[in-house]
Amino acid sequence: MPDVSPTKWHRAHVTWFFEAFVLADHQPGFSMFQDTYWTLFNSYYESVGARHPRANRGHISRPGALEVGDYRRHVDDRMLDLLSTRLPGERSDGGRPEDDALRALVSLGFHHEHQHQELLLMDIKHVLSRNPLEPVGYPGPRVAPGPPSTVSWIEFGGGVVDAGNSSDGFHFDNEEPTHAELLRPFRLADRLVTNGEWLEFMTDGGYERHEFWLSDGWVRVNEEKWCSPLYWKRDGSQWLEHTLHGTRPVRLNEPVVHVSHYEADAFATWAGKRLPTEFEWEHAMRESMVAPPPRGDQAHGIEGFHPAADTGGTAMRQVFDSAWQWTSSAYLPYPGFTTPAGAVGEYNGKFMSGQMVLRGGASVTPKGHARVSYRNFFAPHARWAFSGVRLADTQMP
Amino acid sequence: MPDVSPTKWHRAHVTWFFEAFVLADHQPGFSMFQDTYWTLFNSYYESVGARHPRANRGHISRPGALEVGDYRRHVDDRMLDLLSTRLPGERSDGGRPEDDALRALVSLGFHHEHQHQELLLMDIKHVLSRNPLEPVGYPGPRVAPGPPSTVSWIEFGGGVVDAGNSSDGFHFDNEEPTHAELLRPFRLADRLVTNGEWLEFMTDGGYERHEFWLSDGWVRVNEEKWCSPLYWKRDGSQWLEHTLHGTRPVRLNEPVVHVSHYEADAFATWAGKRLPTEFEWEHAMRESMVAPPPRGDQAHGIEGFHPAADTGGTAMRQVFDSAWQWTSSAYLPYPGFTTPAGAVGEYNGKFMSGQMVLRGGASVTPKGHARVSYRNFFAPHARWAFSGVRLADTQMP
Amino acid sequence: MPDVSPTKWHRAHVTWFFEAFVLADHQPGFSMFQDTYWTLFNSYYESVGARHPRANRGHISRPGALEVGDYRRHVDDRMLDLLSTRLPGERSDGGRPEDDALRALVSLGFHHEHQHQELLLMDIKHVLSRNPLEPVGYPGPRVAPGPPSTVSWIEFGGGVVDAGNSSDGFHFDNEEPTHAELLRPFRLADRLVTNGEWLEFMTDGGYERHEFWLSDGWVRVNEEKWCSPLYWKRDGSQWLEHTLHGTRPVRLNEPVVHVSHYEADAFATWAGKRLPTEFEWEHAMRESMVAPPPRGDQAHGIEGFHPAADTGGTAMRQVFDSAWQWTSSAYLPYPGFTTPAGAVGEYNGKFMSGQMVLRGGASVTPKGHARVSYRNFFAPHARWAFSGVRLADTQMP
Amino acid sequence: MPDVSPTKWHRAHVTWFFEAFVLADHQPGFSMFQDTYWTLFNSYYESVGARHPRANRGHISRPGALEVGDYRRHVDDRMLDLLSTRLPGERSDGGRPEDDALRALVSLGFHHEHQHQELLLMDIKHVLSRNPLEPVGYPGPRVAPGPPSTVSWIEFGGGVVDAGNSSDGFHFDNEEPTHAELLRPFRLADRLVTNGEWLEFMTDGGYERHEFWLSDGWVRVNEEKWCSPLYWKRDGSQWLEHTLHGTRPVRLNEPVVHVSHYEADAFATWAGKRLPTEFEWEHAMRESMVAPPPRGDQAHGIEGFHPAADTGGTAMRQVFDSAWQWTSSAYLPYPGFTTPAGAVGEYNGKFMSGQMVLRGGASVTPKGHARVSYRNFFAPHARWAFSGVRLADTQMP
Repeated sequence: MPDVSPTKWHRAHVTWFFEAFVLADHQPGFSMFQDTYWTLFNSYYESVGARHPRANRGHISRPGALEVGDYRRHVDDRMLDLLSTRLPGERSDGGRPEDDALRALVSLGFHHEHQHQELLLMDIKHVLSRNPLEPVGYPGPRVAPGPPSTVSWIEFGGGVVDAGNSSDGFHFDNEEPTHAELLRPFRLADRLVTNGEWLEFMTDGGYERHEFWLSDGWVRVNEEKWCSPLYWKRDGSQWLEHTLHGTRPVRLNEPVVHVSHYEADAFATWAGKRLPTEFEWEHAMRESMVAPPPRGDQAHGIEGFHPAADTGGTAMRQVFDSAWQWTSSAYLPYPGFTTPAGAVGEYNGKFMSGQMVLRGGASVTPKGHARVSYRNFFAPHARWAFSGVRLADTQMP
Repeated sequence: MPDVSPTKWHRAHVTWFFEAFVLADHQPGFSMFQDTYWTLFNSYYESVGARHPRANRGHISRPGALEVGDYRRHVDDRMLDLLSTRLPGERSDGGRPEDDALRALVSLGFHHEHQHQELLLMDIKHVLSRNPLEPVGYPGPRVAPGPPSTVSWIEFGGGVVDAGNSSDGFHFDNEEPTHAELLRPFRLADRLVTNGEWLEFMTDGGYERHEFWLSDGWVRVNEEKWCSPLYWKRDGSQWLEHTLHGTRPVRLNEPVVHVSHYEADAFATWAGKRLPTEFEWEHAMRESMVAPPPRGDQAHGIEGFHPAADTGGTAMRQVFDSAWQWTSSAYLPYPGFTTPAGAVGEYNGKFMSGQMVLRGGASVTPKGHARVSYRNFFAPHARWAFSGVRLADTQMP
Repeated sequence: MPDVSPTKWHRAHVTWFFEAFVLADHQPGFSMFQDTYWTLFNSYYESVGARHPRANRGHISRPGALEVGDYRRHVDDRMLDLLSTRLPGERSDGGRPEDDALRALVSLGFHHEHQHQELLLMDIKHVLSRNPLEPVGYPGPRVAPGPPSTVSWIEFGGGVVDAGNSSDGFHFDNEEPTHAELLRPFRLADRLVTNGEWLEFMTDGGYERHEFWLSDGWVRVNEEKWCSPLYWKRDGSQWLEHTLHGTRPVRLNEPVVHVSHYEADAFATWAGKRLPTEFEWEHAMRESMVAPPPRGDQAHGIEGFHPAADTGGTAMRQVFDSAWQWTSSAYLPYPGFTTPAGAVGEYNGKFMSGQMVLRGGASVTPKGHARVSYRNFFAPHARWAFSGVRLADTQMP
Repeated sequence: MPDVSPTKWHRAHVTWFFEAFVLADHQPGFSMFQDTYWTLFNSYYESVGARHPRANRGHISRPGALEVGDYRRHVDDRMLDLLSTRLPGERSDGGRPEDDALRALVSLGFHHEHQHQELLLMDIKHVLSRNPLEPVGYPGPRVAPGPPSTVSWIEFGGGVVDAGNSSDGFHFDNEEPTHAELLRPFRLADRLVTNGEWLEFMTDGGYERHEFWLSDGWVRVNEEKWCSPLYWKRDGSQWLEHTLHGTRPVRLNEPVVHVSHYEADAFATWAGKRLPTEFEWEHAMRESMVAPPPRGDQAHGIEGFHPAADTGGTAMRQVFDSAWQWTSSAYLPYPGFTTPAGAVGEYNGKFMSGQMVLRGGASVTPKGHARVSYRNFFAPHARWAFSGVRLADTQMP
C-alpha cells in the first residue's frame, strides 16, 4: 500500500526532522550527515528541497537498518551537544526568545516522533496482514471475552462554548486559535461501538444497502468490495481479525476498529444516530473531565496494542486509549488560523482539504501524546489507522 | 471528460425525472415509455434501479435527437394530463396533502431542469473547447474592454445569525433546516476577482510556488500541469480565453472564471486574504439586501453567457449573475438535516462528502433559479463550472 | 473502445488520404481544404504532421456529417480534375514514370478506402453492441439453421514453395518481396470452426482450464472475464449473438467469429490441432486454386454482413467470404522487405511488431479487395475484427 | 518495477522448484516444508496451485533471509538423500526409465537455478539503480578505456540448414525439435555494437526521429521518455552508466547493453542494417565454431559482471560472454514442438507469444549455461536484461 513506509524509513525520518529543522538552523558549523539522506528521509516538506517519492520508500534496499542506526546516533549526539549548550537548565520563564524558539522546535520534534511511533505500528500491522504466513507481531494476552457492556447516552446542553488550545503546554498549530463555537444540545455514547454491534450492521445488509451510504462511500464499497472492517476475514462460519497479537476470532465486546469515515457514517445512519462534530466531542470530553493517560503510564505496553473491551461504568469511557473516533467535521482551519513561518508551516496547514477529523486516541498512541483539543485527520476512505466510532444523537428537548 | 454528458442525454434525463418521480407514482395505469430509457437516463438514483455508467453516456449513438424529442413529447403530454386533473387551479393553502406532495415533486422537477440547463452550457463549452476547429457556440457581443473597477471591502459585524431556508418558497433540502451560526466580524469584497488580478498572481509565480497551495492542490497543479484557468491558452505573447462566444483575448476587467477551489484558495493566500465561509457569504448578502434576478428578467440572454465586467459602484455586486463563488466551507449537512423519504432523498444528501460549497450564481444560471440560501457544490479540483472568487478578510477590531 | 472511430471520421479520413497523399503532391496550386482537418483526419502518419489523438476521435462534435460531406465533394472534384488531366486514358504500358507513381498512389487510396469500408462495419457493430437498446444495424435474412457440414482435412506436401506477391496487380508493400519458404507436409481443414464446435470447447471448460492457453491469453481471460466470443451473451439457458442484423440465438452451423488469437490458439490446443502458419495457408490456397470474389460480385450485399453457414462440399471453402483466419505467424517483414519512400512508407512497415497475421477475408470485406497473398494483422487480444479459425495439423508420414 | 523480485525470493524459489517438481513426486512420505511457502514461492505454475502475485513479492517481510536459509537446507538435505538412494553412481546408459525421468528433472532444476542466478544480478542491478545513494553492488576493475576495435562483416551462404537441439546433452524443450530452415545469404558483424556507436545514433537524433522506429517502440519512447539506454544518465556534459560495479562514465568501446528490442531495431534501421533472425544467428555461430565458456571457467568472476570491451580479432567475438543479442524473430514454437507432460510443460511453451528471441549469453550468465541453440526471450520493450545488439546485413550477390 502506498501509504505504508518501512520501519527503517520511519526511524530515519524522525531523526531527519531533528537534523533538518533543528541542527541545520541552530548548530554552529552544521553539515549534512549525507546529502542523499536529506532527500530520502524528507516526507513532504517542499521548502526543504527535493523528496524521494513516498510510494517508492519500500523499494530502497540501502541504507540498511544498521546504517540508519548510525545516522540516528550521529544526530542524537549533536542534538545532545546543542541542547547542553543552549538549553542547559530547566525551563525558565525569562528565556531568551531565540531559546524559546529552539525549545519549541525540539518539542515539536518529540511530538512528531510520537506520531511516527503510532504510524510505525499501523504500518507493521498492515505489512504483516498481507503476509500469508500470518505472522504475530507481538505476543498478546489471551483474554476470555466477557459480555459486552451496556451503552448509555450522556447529555450535554448547547450554547456558545470554547474550542481549541492556545495554552502554554505543547499543542499543534492546527489546535489554534481558541475560539467560540455554537452548539445545540446533544447526547454522546459513553463507549465506542463494539464488534458485536458492527456484526449486527453487517447481518442487516449494512454493506449491501446503498441507502445508508454517502455516494463516495458506496463507490468504494463496490470498487474495493468492502464487506467488513479492514482486517476481518471470513473463515467458514466465523469471522477472524488480524491484530498485532496475531489472527484470532473477532471478539464481540471489543470496539470495532479500522473502519473508514464512510463506514462509520453508514453505521450511524443505520443505527438512526449520527457522528458527533469535532466541537461536540471536544466540549463533551471537557465537561466529562476525562484525562488522557500521562507519559509515565505504562499500563498497556506491547501487550495492549489492540483496543480492550469496555468493562462498563457510568462515566465517559474509551476516550483516549482505544480507537480514534471519526467526527462529522471536515478538517479545516479554525477561524483566524495562520501557518507558522518557515518549513514547519507545512506541518499541518496544507493538509486542510479533503480529510475528516478524528478525536481521542488509540491503544497504539504513545502515552502522553493525546489531549482533548488534539485533531487527528485522515481521508474519509482511510482504514489503516486505529479508527473507531462513538455515536452522537441530537438531544430532543 | 467523464463529467460531461451529451446534449441529448440532458434533454432525455430531465424528462426521465418527471417520468420516474411523478408519472410512475401518480399517473393511473402508468407504463414506462421504454424500459431501456429507464436505465439509460437515470443519473444516480440507486433506488430507481440500474443505471447506465456515466462515463459511457457519450458512447450511445441511439436513441438520436429525434427519438429523444419523441420521448419528451410523450412525457410532457402525460404530465399535462395529470396536472390538469390533479392540480387544475391556482395553489390554495387548503390543498390536500397528497396534492401538496405532487406539487412539490413537480416543482422539484422544474428546478432540476434549471440545473441541467446550466450543466448543458457547461458541457457544450467543454466539448467545444476540445475541438481544434474552435467553434463558436453562440454569437456574442464585441465589447471594448474598459478600465477595471475598484474593489471595496464591505464590513460585517459578527454574532449569532440565521442561516438556511425553511420558507414556503421552493428550496432544496440541503438548505434546511434554518439554524443559528456564530460569526466573527469580517469584510467581503464588493466584486469578484478579475482576470487582470489573476494575471498578476500568475506573473508572480502563482502556479509555481508551493507555499500558496493546499497539498492536494499542489499535486493537481503538477500532475495536470495547471498554469492558468481552465479555458485559457497561450498564443505567443498574449493569453486567449475560450468562451461560449468564441475564443478571444483575455479581458482584464472581466471576472476570472473556471478556477478550482484549490486555485481560489491559493489566490487568496497569495493576496493575503481568504475565502469566506458559506455562512459569512449568506449573512453578508442578506445584510446587503441583494436580490437574484427574477424569472422574467431576460437582460442577458444568449449574448451574455460569459460573465460581464464589473462597472463599479458602492454596493455588493456580481453576486448572482457572474460566477459561482467558492467558499471555504466543506459541503456538509446542516444541524438536524434529514433526507426526504423515497428516491428524491438521494437528490442531495448522499453527496455531502469531499466537496466544497459555492454560493451565488453564474451568467449561465437560469433566471429565477438562484437565491441567497442556495448551496452549489463541486469537488475542490473541478473547473468546468462557471466558478470564480470573491475574497474575504478578517475584520480587525 | 479506443480502437473504434465514428463513421464520419472514417469518411473524412479516406478523403484526407487522397488530399494528403495525392493532391498535396500532384495538384498545381494545391491548398488545404481546412488546416485543422489536416490534423483531425490524419490517422497515424507522423511524416505528415501532428495528429488528433485516436482515442479522442469520438469526442469531436464538429465538423458534423454534412460538413464532412462537403469535404468529400471538394476533394473528389479536385481528384477528378487531376485524373482527367494527368491520366486521361486507359493504362498504357509505356506510361511516364511520374504517371505510374501517381497511378500507384491513387490505387493505394482506393484499397485504403476498401479497408475502411470494412473497419466502418466493425466499428458500427461494436458501437451498437454497447447500446442497451440492441439496435439492428441492417435488415438480415431469417435463415433456418441447417445441420452443420462435415469437416474434411486436405493434405499438402512440404518442400520449398513460393510466398508473397511481386506481381503487377495491386498489392500492399507487406506482401513483398516474393521469396521461398520451406514447408513440412501438413493438412488443413476445408471449412472454418463452427459455433457448435466452439460451444463444445466452452462446455468442456475451454475458458476455465489454463492448460489450453498461452500465458498472455490466460491473463486476458481472467482480467476481462472472457467466457465466450466477443458478441455472445447468455440469456437464461441459451446463448445469443449480437450481429449487424440484430441479436439472435447463436446458430450452431455458422462459423465462429470475433475470437482473439489467444482464443483461436487455445481452441486449437483443446482440439489437438494447431493454427496454420501464414505460409502453409497461402500455399494451400494456391494449390487449391481458390479465387476471391471479384469486384463486381454482389451476391452478399448488406443482407450478408454476417458469415454464412458452410453448406458442405469437397473443396476448400469459406476462404475469402466468411471470417479472417488467424495464423500462428507473427506479423514480421518478409526477407528483403523495404519500406517505400515518403509518408506511405508508414502504411504497413512500422506495425510489424506485436501482432499476428490473419489470412483470407470476411463477409464484410469489400468484394475485390482480398487475395491469396493478402496479409491482415491484429494484436493477439483483438476481437472486434471478423476473425475466425481454420485448423491445421501436421501430416503424419 | 513489477518484474523485479527480492534476492530472498529467488533463493527460496529455486529451492521450491526442487521441492515441488522433484521431492513431491519422488520422495517417499513427502510432506511440504510449509504450506504457505508452496504458494509464496511458486512463480507461474498454474498446475501446482495458487500463487502469490508477482508484483507483491517485494512486500513480504517474512520469511526473512535466515528462514529462507533454513528452507534451503531442509530441501537440500532431502534432495541429497533422494539422489544417493535413487541415482547413486555415474550416469549409465542402461538406466531405468523412471531414473532417467528423475535425472532429467534434477538437471532441469540446476539449469533453472542458473537462470535465476542471472535474474538475481539483473534484479539487484535494477534495485540499486533506483537508490539515490548509488551503491556499488560489487567491486570492479578500473580499466582505462582503449580505442574501439574495428567491426568486420563475416559472410554466410544461404541454403537449407539445421536448427535446434535434440541432443542427449541438456537443453530446454523450446530448442526442440531439430528441423530444417531455409536461409538466404547474409553477413553478420563480428562484434557487438559499442556505446560509442550508440552515442552517434543518439547524436543523430536517434530517439527523436520517428522514421527509425516501429510504431509500438515510438509510443514507448514518448510515453517513457526514453533518450538513452536504460542505465545511462546525463551529468552535465557527459553520460554516466550505472553498473554492478558502480556508476561511472560511459566507456565508448564497451558493448551497449540494456536496450530494448525496439531500440535495437531502430538502431539497425538508422545504421542501414538489420537484426539477424534467430536461425541466421544460430547457423553463423555453428559455422564459426564458437564455443560457450564451460562450467569450470571462472575467468570473469564478480569483477566481470559488466560486459568487457572487445579487443579486436578476425573471428566471431562477444558471442556468449558480453550481452544477449536481440534477433528479429518472434518467440514461437519450432515446427512439431510439443509441451512436456505435467507442470514442467508450463516452463516455456505458454510464453510463446508477444516476445522476441535473444541469442548468445551475457557477462552475468553463469558459465556452462549457454549454448548455440539456446533461446532467451523477453518482451520487445524489456530493458533490464543484459541485452545488446549484433547487426546483420543481407549479403549482396
